[in-house]
Amino acid sequence: MKAFVMREIGRVGFMEKPVPEPGPNDAVVRTTKALICTSDSHTVQGGIGPREDLTLGHEAVGVVHAVGSEVKDFRPGERVLVGAITPDWGDLASQNGYPSQSGGPLGGFKFANSKDGVFAEYFHVNDADANLARIPDGVSDDMAVYCADMLSTGFMGAEKGNIPVGGTVAVLAQGPVGLMATAGARLRGAGLVVGVESVPGRQKLARAYGAGEVVDFTSEDVVERVLELTEGQGVDTAIEALGADVTFQTAVRITKPGGTISVIGYFGEGEFVRIPRVEWGVGMADKTIATGLCPGGRLRMERLLRVLEARMVDPSPMTTHEFAFDDMERAFEVSDKKLDDVVKVLISF
Amino acid sequence: MKAFVMREIGRVGFMEKPVPEPGPNDAVVRTTKALICTSDSHTVQGGIGPREDLTLGHEAVGVVHAVGSEVKDFRPGERVLVGAITPDWGDLASQNGYPSQSGGPLGGFKFANSKDGVFAEYFHVNDADANLARIPDGVSDDMAVYCADMLSTGFMGAEKGNIPVGGTVAVLAQGPVGLMATAGARLRGAGLVVGVESVPGRQKLARAYGAGEVVDFTSEDVVERVLELTEGQGVDTAIEALGADVTFQTAVRITKPGGTISVIGYFGEGEFVRIPRVEWGVGMADKTIATGLCPGGRLRMERLLRVLEARMVDPSPMTTHEFAFDDMERAFEVSDKKLDDVVKVLISF
Amino acid sequence: MKAFVMREIGRVGFMEKPVPEPGPNDAVVRTTKALICTSDSHTVQGGIGPREDLTLGHEAVGVVHAVGSEVKDFRPGERVLVGAITPDWGDLASQNGYPSQSGGPLGGFKFANSKDGVFAEYFHVNDADANLARIPDGVSDDMAVYCADMLSTGFMGAEKGNIPVGGTVAVLAQGPVGLMATAGARLRGAGLVVGVESVPGRQKLARAYGAGEVVDFTSEDVVERVLELTEGQGVDTAIEALGADVTFQTAVRITKPGGTISVIGYFGEGEFVRIPRVEWGVGMADKTIATGLCPGGRLRMERLLRVLEARMVDPSPMTTHEFAFDDMERAFEVSDKKLDDVVKVLISF
Amino acid sequence: MKAFVMREIGRVGFMEKPVPEPGPNDAVVRTTKALICTSDSHTVQGGIGPREDLTLGHEAVGVVHAVGSEVKDFRPGERVLVGAITPDWGDLASQNGYPSQSGGPLGGFKFANSKDGVFAEYFHVNDADANLARIPDGVSDDMAVYCADMLSTGFMGAEKGNIPVGGTVAVLAQGPVGLMATAGARLRGAGLVVGVESVPGRQKLARAYGAGEVVDFTSEDVVERVLELTEGQGVDTAIEALGADVTFQTAVRITKPGGTISVIGYFGEGEFVRIPRVEWGVGMADKTIATGLCPGGRLRMERLLRVLEARMVDPSPMTTHEFAFDDMERAFEVSDKKLDDVVKVLISF
Repeated sequence: MKAFVMREIGRVGFMEKPVPEPGPNDAVVRTTKALICTSDSHTVQGGIGPREDLTLGHEAVGVVHAVGSEVKDFRPGERVLVGAITPDWGDLASQNGYPSQSGGPLGGFKFANSKDGVFAEYFHVNDADANLARIPDGVSDDMAVYCADMLSTGFMGAEKGNIPVGGTVAVLAQGPVGLMATAGARLRGAGLVVGVESVPGRQKLARAYGAGEVVDFTSEDVVERVLELTEGQGVDTAIEALGADVTFQTAVRITKPGGTISVIGYFGEGEFVRIPRVEWGVGMADKTIATGLCPGGRLRMERLLRVLEARMVDPSPMTTHEFAFDDMERAFEVSDKKLDDVVKVLISF
Repeated sequence: MKAFVMREIGRVGFMEKPVPEPGPNDAVVRTTKALICTSDSHTVQGGIGPREDLTLGHEAVGVVHAVGSEVKDFRPGERVLVGAITPDWGDLASQNGYPSQSGGPLGGFKFANSKDGVFAEYFHVNDADANLARIPDGVSDDMAVYCADMLSTGFMGAEKGNIPVGGTVAVLAQGPVGLMATAGARLRGAGLVVGVESVPGRQKLARAYGAGEVVDFTSEDVVERVLELTEGQGVDTAIEALGADVTFQTAVRITKPGGTISVIGYFGEGEFVRIPRVEWGVGMADKTIATGLCPGGRLRMERLLRVLEARMVDPSPMTTHEFAFDDMERAFEVSDKKLDDVVKVLISF
Repeated sequence: MKAFVMREIGRVGFMEKPVPEPGPNDAVVRTTKALICTSDSHTVQGGIGPREDLTLGHEAVGVVHAVGSEVKDFRPGERVLVGAITPDWGDLASQNGYPSQSGGPLGGFKFANSKDGVFAEYFHVNDADANLARIPDGVSDDMAVYCADMLSTGFMGAEKGNIPVGGTVAVLAQGPVGLMATAGARLRGAGLVVGVESVPGRQKLARAYGAGEVVDFTSEDVVERVLELTEGQGVDTAIEALGADVTFQTAVRITKPGGTISVIGYFGEGEFVRIPRVEWGVGMADKTIATGLCPGGRLRMERLLRVLEARMVDPSPMTTHEFAFDDMERAFEVSDKKLDDVVKVLISF
Repeated sequence: MKAFVMREIGRVGFMEKPVPEPGPNDAVVRTTKALICTSDSHTVQGGIGPREDLTLGHEAVGVVHAVGSEVKDFRPGERVLVGAITPDWGDLASQNGYPSQSGGPLGGFKFANSKDGVFAEYFHVNDADANLARIPDGVSDDMAVYCADMLSTGFMGAEKGNIPVGGTVAVLAQGPVGLMATAGARLRGAGLVVGVESVPGRQKLARAYGAGEVVDFTSEDVVERVLELTEGQGVDTAIEALGADVTFQTAVRITKPGGTISVIGYFGEGEFVRIPRVEWGVGMADKTIATGLCPGGRLRMERLLRVLEARMVDPSPMTTHEFAFDDMERAFEVSDKKLDDVVKVLISF
């Protein structure tokens, strides 16, 4: 089969690979749709270390092609979604409530990391009964594929942010994950969501997903503006959706005492991420800093699909570009170099 | 001033009373709008014991008329909302996180209970800085008055229900509090809300507030239908919004293991409320039964007003009837006897 | 091999069975020590329905005899503990945080229920990597075996009770699970634990495990006495460790508004368990009723073993009787008929 | 009356001040015992900015001298404890669950900050009914005074650390607050507490308060040693009890994915506190950083006094020095310069 791989750090391309075989508890899925993620670019740049001929991609839906002997709930031909994170559910970290950390820190992140990813005609899924979810008839593949990572990660930012009904939230950066954090904040009942973003197209999407105010950090002081919007108190919850030291500092500064800084950005650079000491209340202002990795698993995916089925959130406006799998090289370039105001690139197989 | 009172058990009417005076920490509010609640009827029927010439009513908005010497944040002339529950914030129960229970069980419930209520031209508010909230310009009195009890109690049902994003919820009974629980469940991200109700007008409102399915208990078996809608699993959260033994039992039966039964109904009858033993998992199915009393206080009211300001929920379709304060006797009769498909009766002063 | 079984409802005895074989993910353990539980008696009396030749018992430790091909972390010869509950960790209920409910309500409870139990020379354990725990050198089999159910269930009563540091707790009934709830309440920092019990030997054990006060319900009114001990407020947490309607009612009555009733008793009788309506605050006093089933799994067992290793709790005084496996019939009679002031009966293989 | 004050930054001494008068809700307490805190030194060094003739001290017990007209529950002559933090309970931050942040960040911290402290013959207490607690007969003043800050802050470190029963904890620095965090970790059921400390006297106290292991950072690599003690996993909870950038970094490094870093140290220096990016899991390892300020208030103090009354923790071994109030200058010097292996200095009035 055809696979789009990272040849080595800095180099991508197609190659032929054998169709994977399922172990007793596993499934193999024939890919129908996939999305390109900025973390695919991080990976190619060496963000998780050197890899050789590793199939890229972790956001996909498809049709069950084969299942192992122990799989009970899924059969070939079923249309399924697979979370970007496919935990080992019996692991100690999973028993502790953190399946994304099973098998070690971030260990649930297997696709295009510890095993081949989904940018191929077929891909392998461990523990199929626990990690696949059937896609309801009312939800298209084009929408369902957003659950794998974008909705799951973005909503997690809101869920971990401990947002009170009617509370105030700021979401720093309105890339696709930040946009879904904006939507997620509204989904949890935030009364005011402030989106921080400078790109006009993303500002517009932020408003569509429920940001009542949008702050452009290139023309306004974010801390001043957010304090003004919250009568000097700061927000209940600041969601950091970029993964940058300076944005993280802003998040701490704009959060009220007793509030939560919820981190969903991937921090790819520098030895340290820095907490501004005084605005952190010299370590005593009851500001909590929460983090997490995209929740996976069948239950999570079923719940996210229900959100789509009920038309509570529509991710499709984030699809700015569509390509056939054969045009994957161009598609990757568009996403990687952020060409043409790209938000998300959808691939059809 | 004119006040509409409970003369004794079973008898209501107008009487003259002096305008109240504020103590050092208190305020007196000139009433502009109020709502009649079914608990006003319970009270008149003797539900909280005998009372003599007690002013009724606990849902109101108005204009600050006078403030005590220690009040810092409010001034006469300001348009304000007061929660139905006005806690003593320094009380041990408040320090424990349960201000509605300050001063003893349900002790935060003072209006028309331990002191005169709001169906009068003026009413008294303890601890004004902590229990008043300014109404934003974009929110009318007619809408704001719903925050005092209906939104606060209904949303609490959803909040205490521990609803996961995309989770399944059933709300048993779609009276005004149940309708706001339905809206609240959507506000917390429920993927499916099932409203249980037989009255057509309320069924229609339930759908408008986000119930994806409505079950009529007069023509369907609620337990069977809810299990069918949830693939045999039961709901994540069942909200009991009626206050009846049989409805409570249904709530336990339709909740999945690990789910929550969130009680917001007022249970006015019988020595016991009964848990069905087997469906409760013989006391071992991880089903939690949560209860609470309408949260009050300035912060809560400010947050609910923000929900109205952002047009996330519109309570006004629940106003089926409007009367002037002079017509209070007729207004009370309509609410008390549930005439004319009444949902809520709004009083103008 | 020899197994002690329930022949049919009401009848027990020995029989020969083949040594079980492990599936790919499983283990077979050679039993060294086991404990008899009152739920073994419930089962024999028909509490979970008819069974034929079902091996009894769910509390045991032993030595790994054989493991399946996929088991990574355990090898024959290792001394291991197995929780009474052995969840399917990939199940939706487990993904939802309730592994004891995997496979349906109470579905994690497999031993002597949906498969043969541990009163045999060998027994089978599903998902060995996730459900076995190595016993540290400093912990004897005689102590470790208490973790399987008694410590796990009793401590859960305290953990689900949401006990504040320095808070007040009542534990209703001081059988072995109630005693471990008493110890667990102290382990969570309760400032006052009131044990309710009439049997002198159990009263003495209650004091040893940290009950500062013991109330004998045969000579005192429990509600009055507990209110007196808590200055009229009621306890933060009442733990029901008997499984009786009347005790449950007492638990609701003695809990303060905002407190928790934590149920760990098995309710074996009656159609309903009854909540006293008025003391429940007519459904509005913020009293939460929590339940659960003994937590199992490797992580839980490792943590409980650490508690024993650190000598924080010593369960051995609960062992009032010891028998060899050959004397199982007499041993079962002592436990079943509560002869001779029995608390727990330990069996050696 | 005589008061020991900060004249200006860097200079302390005695001066005469009038005995304070209570407002309507307040009390004045005649001091009997007080403790010197390292934050008194921070304050004198200018840590909270310039102050003139500010009475120092925030840890004290005494006898009620006078109460205001509105005070209901306390009378002159009663022996009372006052928390170091005396919140405004009606404030929005208190309503939000964070009374220590009432009136602004860290605003509940009034003594020796926004008003005169307790190193005087008499001191003033706002909102007496909510901020005083009667000392039980079985608890001496010498012990009770430790509740004001040391127990409350140290235990908070454990409580916010979300310690599972049988979990693993490291407490970094075993000063008086760190020692109480060690005791608090045991009080919440930690199975292993690792104390990090180099001073022999404090190491000994750490063991007495329940540290099963003590690591001397001057001779061992703390990260390596803690990972070794936890089989490579890291601790469930790391409590930072020093307030230093480097210790904080260690805390992040030794915490397992899904664990909590609970900060109770006062961070007095530098523009930033730095999170080690990689060991923080690039912002994705589900490591939560929690902070807080000493909880105050009557309920908290009553609960802590119950812990002392039940002899669950004995703070008195931390009293290494005792002085009469007349010798306050020498007492302050001992504490300030950490002379003579001082842990805590107790002052008698």
